[in-house]
Amino acid sequence: MTTASIADPLSLNVSLGERSYPIYIGAGLMDQGERLVSHLSGRQVMVVTNETVAAHYLERLTTALARADETLRIETLVLPDGEAYKNIEGVSRIWDALLEAGFNRRSTLVALGGGVIGDMVGYAAASYQRGISFIQVPTTLLSQVDSSVGGKTGVNHPLGKNMIGAFWQPRAVLIDTATLATLPQRELSAGLAEVIKYGFIYDRAFLEWLEQQLDALRRLDDAALATAIERSCAIKAEIVALDETEQGVRALLNLGHTFGHAIEAHMGYGAWLHGEAVGAGMMMAADLSMRLGFIDSEAVDRTRRLIERCGLPVSAPAEMSVEDFVSRMKLDKKNLDDRIRLILLQELGKACVHDQTPSAVLHDCIKEFPRC
Amino acid sequence: MTTASIADPLSLNVSLGERSYPIYIGAGLMDQGERLVSHLSGRQVMVVTNETVAAHYLERLTTALARADETLRIETLVLPDGEAYKNIEGVSRIWDALLEAGFNRRSTLVALGGGVIGDMVGYAAASYQRGISFIQVPTTLLSQVDSSVGGKTGVNHPLGKNMIGAFWQPRAVLIDTATLATLPQRELSAGLAEVIKYGFIYDRAFLEWLEQQLDALRRLDDAALATAIERSCAIKAEIVALDETEQGVRALLNLGHTFGHAIEAHMGYGAWLHGEAVGAGMMMAADLSMRLGFIDSEAVDRTRRLIERCGLPVSAPAEMSVEDFVSRMKLDKKNLDDRIRLILLQELGKACVHDQTPSAVLHDCIKEFPRC
Repeated sequence: MTTASIADPLSLNVSLGERSYPIYIGAGLMDQGERLVSHLSGRQVMVVTNETVAAHYLERLTTALARADETLRIETLVLPDGEAYKNIEGVSRIWDALLEAGFNRRSTLVALGGGVIGDMVGYAAASYQRGISFIQVPTTLLSQVDSSVGGKTGVNHPLGKNMIGAFWQPRAVLIDTATLATLPQRELSAGLAEVIKYGFIYDRAFLEWLEQQLDALRRLDDAALATAIERSCAIKAEIVALDETEQGVRALLNLGHTFGHAIEAHMGYGAWLHGEAVGAGMMMAADLSMRLGFIDSEAVDRTRRLIERCGLPVSAPAEMSVEDFVSRMKLDKKNLDDRIRLILLQELGKACVHDQTPSAVLHDCIKEFPRC
Repeated sequence: MTTASIADPLSLNVSLGERSYPIYIGAGLMDQGERLVSHLSGRQVMVVTNETVAAHYLERLTTALARADETLRIETLVLPDGEAYKNIEGVSRIWDALLEAGFNRRSTLVALGGGVIGDMVGYAAASYQRGISFIQVPTTLLSQVDSSVGGKTGVNHPLGKNMIGAFWQPRAVLIDTATLATLPQRELSAGLAEVIKYGFIYDRAFLEWLEQQLDALRRLDDAALATAIERSCAIKAEIVALDETEQGVRALLNLGHTFGHAIEAHMGYGAWLHGEAVGAGMMMAADLSMRLGFIDSEAVDRTRRLIERCGLPVSAPAEMSVEDFVSRMKLDKKNLDDRIRLILLQELGKACVHDQTPSAVLHDCIKEFPRC
């Protein structure tokens, strides 16, 4: 296995007909202005980022763009950092900036940052003048393997996570693995939650590879990272291509998310990182899968060990009651009419959609689950 | 020609592949709950309207729905009336109501009202949980022939009209022509602006029919109204089917709108009705078409007579300078990079897209155009 280089990054294509787009993965891609410019529409580009990421990468990216094409009009917008700012007011600031700059519908937004920036910029692009182009330059492991792939964009509402948004595909995704060097350890762990999720739901061989390579990933070994990101994106791209608007198989990507979203919403967005909530949520889903007879206690233990080795929580917040979970879970977007739909493990490496969990079993599962 | 009846309304199909939908046109359709119910997805439905329309039709519509299906959960939301409320805050009220009701992604919004309600409800549907179904029940002539057809949804921004929105198709459109009996005369005129626009841009025979039938239309003759609405929707449906996302021929529908939007924005949304601004705007486009040698003064006079007979303005606001127009027109969504693109008349019944107007000619046209 060779490490991806600037000249020859790993790449894959997300196949969505006329909305298909490429994902490039490699160390140093941030400096490849030409690659970015080749995916712009029009000559107006606005790079949107947050305060934290701006300090590391904003000037580098705009310099690369300007060097690649002197005729570009390049604007920048720096938003506050954090999930707490992922709301319609934040998106409105992007719209305001685009209108104040006089940008028309042949302009391009570049999302430089993690999932919050990607989701907000994507939704701003989906709705500005009824839709303009955008490019993702994700700088966290979570956004590299999750929110930069699949076209889900949107913001939170006080009554629910990601309740307002659109399906809107980027023109291209540039993943510079070197950006992970500036990522806090806690956020790296949160990203690993989504990486191991792909193994749990879809690919037992990848799951076993992850059990072997987890320490290397946490040490930021380039080759291991590139492989893990490429395989994660490929699995997600495969699932999204089968089901762009989440009518069926795509729901499997939500393993751990129904429980996890309840934790995030109850604790207040930002208190638990998304990946931390998903880590605990996957553990709850594994526990429920065992109670329903899908997997045995050995598989649950193996699940727990891998989640723990990522540096993720395997217990739920002490202050959350059964009712706190259930009332939030009833609002989940996957539900049809009044049934709670959950993603459960049929075996390690294979998930399923399930909406027949008896209330009493769900109640006991949540009640007896360890608290932290 | 026979008048459309409840039992057998006129209908046409907007052909957009899997997003195709029917338009029904007839007096009394509002009471056909079964027809509406057949286009719902799920059992949760929220009827959104404004204070004015609610007084006339809200109870009638919800009664028809409840009678057709007792198992429906029917919620209602009444917003303030007027273009001044067509903004992101208004859309947020719809999202709030949906979340407070616990509605999931298999719910349906029904837009009962004019273009403002249709545009806001459509955009709320496009963005709620990344997209839910909606049905249009337009109650103004303008919305019946224009904004209920074609999937354009959205809201205004202080810096520009319809700047935030999405392309989102309804599941069905029910046009009850009897609702025009409660429409103020001024709004009927505004609707006629869009009706005659279809003749000007696309159909000389329809234009000549309108010259003959205009008095009957203003008297609310049922047969004439049904024919005019059906022909208008058919022309728009034909153009939209050719060009759903406005890359080409669909731009022709904007005859008079580039000038008109400048008037609406400068005067403050709601001061001039959209159709009034389009009336004056079509007159300005005709004048410019003559200056560029496309049509002669006789065609301009004929254009003026028809616009005047609709009860519409054929002059511009006294307070608007050339710069007031040009600065707004530069923000128009049709523009590519820095060119102002206008829809002009090649002849009566045939429009074209033009982006080569010399600044001086545009300047003189605006400067010398009559003021009111």
